[in-house]
Amino acid sequence: MEPFSGYFSTHRERFIQEWREFLSFKSISTDPAFHEDCVACSDWVRRHLDGLGFSTRYLPSKSKPVVLGERQGSSGKSRVLFYGHYDVQPVDPLELWLSDPFKPEVRDGRMYARGAQDNKGQVFSFFKALEALIALGIELPNIKVLIEGEEESGSEALHAGLPGWGPELQSDILMVADTGMVASGVPTITMGLRGIAHCEVTVRGPKVDIHSGVYGGIVRNPLQTLSTILASLYKDDGTVAVPGFYEGVQEPTKRERDLANDAPIKVGDIEALLGVPLVGGEKRFTPMERRGLRPTLEINGLGGGYQGRGGKTVIPACAMAKLSMRLVAGQDPQRVLSSVVEFLRNAAPAGIAVEVSDVAIGGPALRLPVDSEVVKIAQRAIRKAFDREPVYVWEGASVPIVSLLEKVAGAAPILVGFGMQEDAIHSPNESYSLKQFEEGFMYSVSFFSVL
Amino acid sequence: MEPFSGYFSTHRERFIQEWREFLSFKSISTDPAFHEDCVACSDWVRRHLDGLGFSTRYLPSKSKPVVLGERQGSSGKSRVLFYGHYDVQPVDPLELWLSDPFKPEVRDGRMYARGAQDNKGQVFSFFKALEALIALGIELPNIKVLIEGEEESGSEALHAGLPGWGPELQSDILMVADTGMVASGVPTITMGLRGIAHCEVTVRGPKVDIHSGVYGGIVRNPLQTLSTILASLYKDDGTVAVPGFYEGVQEPTKRERDLANDAPIKVGDIEALLGVPLVGGEKRFTPMERRGLRPTLEINGLGGGYQGRGGKTVIPACAMAKLSMRLVAGQDPQRVLSSVVEFLRNAAPAGIAVEVSDVAIGGPALRLPVDSEVVKIAQRAIRKAFDREPVYVWEGASVPIVSLLEKVAGAAPILVGFGMQEDAIHSPNESYSLKQFEEGFMYSVSFFSVL
Repeated sequence: MEPFSGYFSTHRERFIQEWREFLSFKSISTDPAFHEDCVACSDWVRRHLDGLGFSTRYLPSKSKPVVLGERQGSSGKSRVLFYGHYDVQPVDPLELWLSDPFKPEVRDGRMYARGAQDNKGQVFSFFKALEALIALGIELPNIKVLIEGEEESGSEALHAGLPGWGPELQSDILMVADTGMVASGVPTITMGLRGIAHCEVTVRGPKVDIHSGVYGGIVRNPLQTLSTILASLYKDDGTVAVPGFYEGVQEPTKRERDLANDAPIKVGDIEALLGVPLVGGEKRFTPMERRGLRPTLEINGLGGGYQGRGGKTVIPACAMAKLSMRLVAGQDPQRVLSSVVEFLRNAAPAGIAVEVSDVAIGGPALRLPVDSEVVKIAQRAIRKAFDREPVYVWEGASVPIVSLLEKVAGAAPILVGFGMQEDAIHSPNESYSLKQFEEGFMYSVSFFSVL
Repeated sequence: MEPFSGYFSTHRERFIQEWREFLSFKSISTDPAFHEDCVACSDWVRRHLDGLGFSTRYLPSKSKPVVLGERQGSSGKSRVLFYGHYDVQPVDPLELWLSDPFKPEVRDGRMYARGAQDNKGQVFSFFKALEALIALGIELPNIKVLIEGEEESGSEALHAGLPGWGPELQSDILMVADTGMVASGVPTITMGLRGIAHCEVTVRGPKVDIHSGVYGGIVRNPLQTLSTILASLYKDDGTVAVPGFYEGVQEPTKRERDLANDAPIKVGDIEALLGVPLVGGEKRFTPMERRGLRPTLEINGLGGGYQGRGGKTVIPACAMAKLSMRLVAGQDPQRVLSSVVEFLRNAAPAGIAVEVSDVAIGGPALRLPVDSEVVKIAQRAIRKAFDREPVYVWEGASVPIVSLLEKVAGAAPILVGFGMQEDAIHSPNESYSLKQFEEGFMYSVSFFSVL
């Protein structure tokens, strides 16, 4: 790995300077005020890939530009599709930033800027790995680089375009560098992501809010009905009571459970961070198993009646709850969602209207087979770059676009990233250490070396 | 009754003129901006009672003035204490009023103004009855008239003062004219009011709102916990599941149930008004029985998590619900409330904080014995004035001050009022018909005639 670390050292200051340029674009995709900044940023990404010897173009988009770069390789090795995004989260509350989020500043070995890690930092360390690989004459396979500009705001262009982009994106491996490590210096393979679907349930009672003295005990209170329906979603053992909810769930293997539990994550640390014991969910699984290997059904919001200070003796006209479910491998999002919707509708007491709306699927779950070829490549890359074994985690969160990309490109995803909790992504003073940046670089060059 | 109806006809125009004066005061007690208007209105009430031959004074108050008028009677008959209030509700939304709420206007036989019915109209028809009784030389008992100015905003002065005013207020009968009729021209005796107590319950989870993907299925969701606790308050048969909730409840007698069900109130009419079937509460009682003769426990407000448009995948830091209970005769508000609070606290799952706050008692219930002397007097008064039998209702709402007055004055309450749904009290375009005003007058003169 010496030539690569030597290359990094030699060009380090230029890397930082170029990274600063990338970070200076206000590419906030969710706010239309920054549309032109997003366009300018995409142009910078495209020109940067041009400079690396890629042929680039914009894929058709009605929203933010999508950059696709391609480079024909000389080897017959597995074709790689890299996915990342150039857009960033909004910066408010701005007053909490110690330096301008779009005037990148290095302090104590960390780059501070919006996007420093998520995802510009991780994307750019991959770009610089490509540069080094090419400069050092490493034999490379065909490589495609897909960089979108709406990951933080719903990936509109990708959802619209991907179903038709199969021919352009066909690859063998899908590299994603948008995840993290369980601890500093502990390279981590993200073995799974949960799928997501959601809906909203509304219980309607009287036409308008009515006096709870005059009508209490006569009219059925929508808040009582909704509480009863929501409570009935769960069993005492922490499982979800909706028939069909667990249909098709791929039971975690002994090896998956062991690896999940072996990750150097202390339950006590999470409990201290959150201030609560980890007593939610299914009692027959450990917290680490429950998080990534088991589905959940959560109430994200609930409201009705008077919520201000003091009291108001009212029976409200309606009550609503927002639900989301996180799904695991084997579950069909449409079937699970239909089961939940049907359960909610059937829970309506006689004469009470229960409506289900905003029914939508984010995407299915992703789970990498422990012994799959692509996981073995990542293992080899990590061993070679860092001289240690990787750690394996199954994430509870969802990145729906990965499952869609996997399907469209026909590629096996591999998720290795170098983010850390302390990077404060989506928060004020986002940062990424130069050490993490270099780790990302070293992992990527190592990946192509061992391919 | 002819002398009285004659007196009414003769003086009708003056009555209306004086009533207009009373209504023109902006005596909105809840808004400090109208404090001086309340004081001016109380002064008008005092001078009006002076004019009727009462000796009047202000009872000690740190908030709005409380007027007490007294007139020694020549008869040894039951001493009467009349209670009413000169304050009114706010008038917003002002734009929905067809005429200025404080420039009283008679249209189609109805007086339109804030307070036209509640409670100035009903109070003033009693004042004019006193005038007629005195002018016509009817032998009267000792009469006390207590008119407060904070009924619409918590009766601060009365709650503070009443416990010490026993000697001043001692009476045999407590007349209240702040209730209504079940239908036009159907004199109604309100036989009961429910008591009230309330509390707020908060379930605390993680320190801050957390990501429902990352932590869903690990952390116990406060919204799930709260829903489960609230659902557990009720049994499938509609009864409240809290042990001790029904302790001491005075079971309605066959006669009370019959009278409650005989009132000319159609369940279908209420259902059409509210837009829901009357399927709440205890299944073994009819809606009319449940309303006034049975207690209830209602959720008045419930909230937690994200309630805006769209979704937000969050497990909230906390969830809260506001509860109120309406109590009936025989229930000790303190004991019932303690049972509910204890039930909520005991419902906390291991490791989850459940807090109960804002625990307060409004007051106990009131129920008049069907065969009591004072009810018989009201029956005779109604028969004499209107040549028909009264209707009996047990109200679901609460007027806590009545129970307190009953206790302090040692007087048997009798609640007969002439309000109607269409009077739109607390709403824009409040009104009171001249017919209702005259009915109130006739009932009052008749009451003293048959005493």
